Amino acid sequence: MGFVKQDLVNQTQLPLDDRGLAYGDGLFETVLVRDGRPQLWDLHLQRLRRGCRVLGMPPPAESELERLPATLGAGLKVLKLIYTRGSGGRGYALPAQPVPRLVWQAQDFSPDTQRWQGVTVRLCRTGLARQPLLAGIKHMARLENVLARGEWQDPMVAEGLLMDCEGLVIEATSMNLFWAPETSHQTPVYTPPLDQCGVAGTLRQALLDLAVLEEHPLVADQLPGCAALWVGNSVQGVWPVSRLEDADGRELARWQPGHLHRDLQHQAHLALGYVGG
Amino acid sequence: MGFVKQDLVNQTQLPLDDRGLAYGDGLFETVLVRDGRPQLWDLHLQRLRRGCRVLGMPPPAESELERLPATLGAGLKVLKLIYTRGSGGRGYALPAQPVPRLVWQAQDFSPDTQRWQGVTVRLCRTGLARQPLLAGIKHMARLENVLARGEWQDPMVAEGLLMDCEGLVIEATSMNLFWAPETSHQTPVYTPPLDQCGVAGTLRQALLDLAVLEEHPLVADQLPGCAALWVGNSVQGVWPVSRLEDADGRELARWQPGHLHRDLQHQAHLALGYVGG
Repeated sequence: MGFVKQDLVNQTQLPLDDRGLAYGDGLFETVLVRDGRPQLWDLHLQRLRRGCRVLGMPPPAESELERLPATLGAGLKVLKLIYTRGSGGRGYALPAQPVPRLVWQAQDFSPDTQRWQGVTVRLCRTGLARQPLLAGIKHMARLENVLARGEWQDPMVAEGLLMDCEGLVIEATSMNLFWAPETSHQTPVYTPPLDQCGVAGTLRQALLDLAVLEEHPLVADQLPGCAALWVGNSVQGVWPVSRLEDADGRELARWQPGHLHRDLQHQAHLALGYVGG
Repeated sequence: MGFVKQDLVNQTQLPLDDRGLAYGDGLFETVLVRDGRPQLWDLHLQRLRRGCRVLGMPPPAESELERLPATLGAGLKVLKLIYTRGSGGRGYALPAQPVPRLVWQAQDFSPDTQRWQGVTVRLCRTGLARQPLLAGIKHMARLENVLARGEWQDPMVAEGLLMDCEGLVIEATSMNLFWAPETSHQTPVYTPPLDQCGVAGTLRQALLDLAVLEEHPLVADQLPGCAALWVGNSVQGVWPVSRLEDADGRELARWQPGHLHRDLQHQAHLALGYVGG
């Protein structure tokens, strides 16, 4: 498939027959942009291309995409890219000549730096279905994440952890999970494999590429005994978990964030430009 | 939760921040309307209400919905209702005061009556993930159906059958599956249970309510030995399967549609008004 040469549009609306709307038939990326420079940009583009391969969509023209972040001006922004299969096709059937739609929105952003000190995280009741065909990519059919995030309103709870149907811990609702086993005092830190479900975040990928992280499965029962837990993504950075609670809000474990926590966070925040090199 | 009193809008666009678009966070119904009278209307409303309970959304005001089909005029139409959680919330987090969006589109429709004589159906490689929380409802996060429908372009193949990760046959890409076991010469006909995945179609429900259908699981290996297979939905009616092929297009079985096939089809087409009572 060739590239789709298409104007990038900062749109506020999409037609009702857009397949992204109708079926979740599309992809998105949420990119941290500092003074016009997108962070972890190559990893975002890599995941977008991978998603296109999985969904059988032509990838967007990267020359168009490359120009976009610089136009956002000074300061810290979050850029949301949405890339759908466009309109057409009959029902679920794909359009013979798909014309994907690439739209974007940007807004000013400040990370929640208080959460860099430590957060409360809870276990969600909502489980992730195992769907290896869609695992890892950031597609738009994200109802499981919505249901999981709907399990709590308490603003003191920063994130929820999702398990799959086998009881393996996979990720948080909008972040990846990092964990250090009981006896660990140094890196590598582990992160659950995402070959069955979950979204492979770009910060997670950056830390894997740096060999700061390794993939290793984790069952829920192991969580309270971990030396450290973190949740993180490429926009907010890394939050050390200081309190873990069950789905009813009962405390399962507490941690005093220490140097093990701060080491991983430092690596992550270097990668995101939140601390200097 | 109260009802949402809201104007029904025949819109052509939705805002980019609509959660239906962003996350598949919404429901839809596709309703056959004959001369202003919606077919299986109560079952469509029932499924919509059930979907609202599952997603934690207030149901739409039915007084508004009730008035809509009559405005579509004479002839056969397909009415598509889309009911999303609306805009708002921060990321996956739900808006504190959700204002769902109810939009619709209608178009003239003719059923593919040639397919009432018999169709070719193939097995899909795409499997359905087991997600009991979302099973049965017609939510908008339908990437699995899109991937499955993308497996073939041959217009002679009318539908594809989807299995779950355990090898149970669940449904077709946009229809439910009905089957008669080897020795069967009469109703009840079976249909796979949909407690783990799949969409519980309104025609399927109508036939269950009439005791013409019963739920019974089916493994893929049993398919070629069935006395009869059908696929059907509330818009197209029921298509007898005359040829079953594997995911590579190799023939697995053939049937000559006979009176067993026509009996179930007749019941279904009575329920949809395609034949007189």
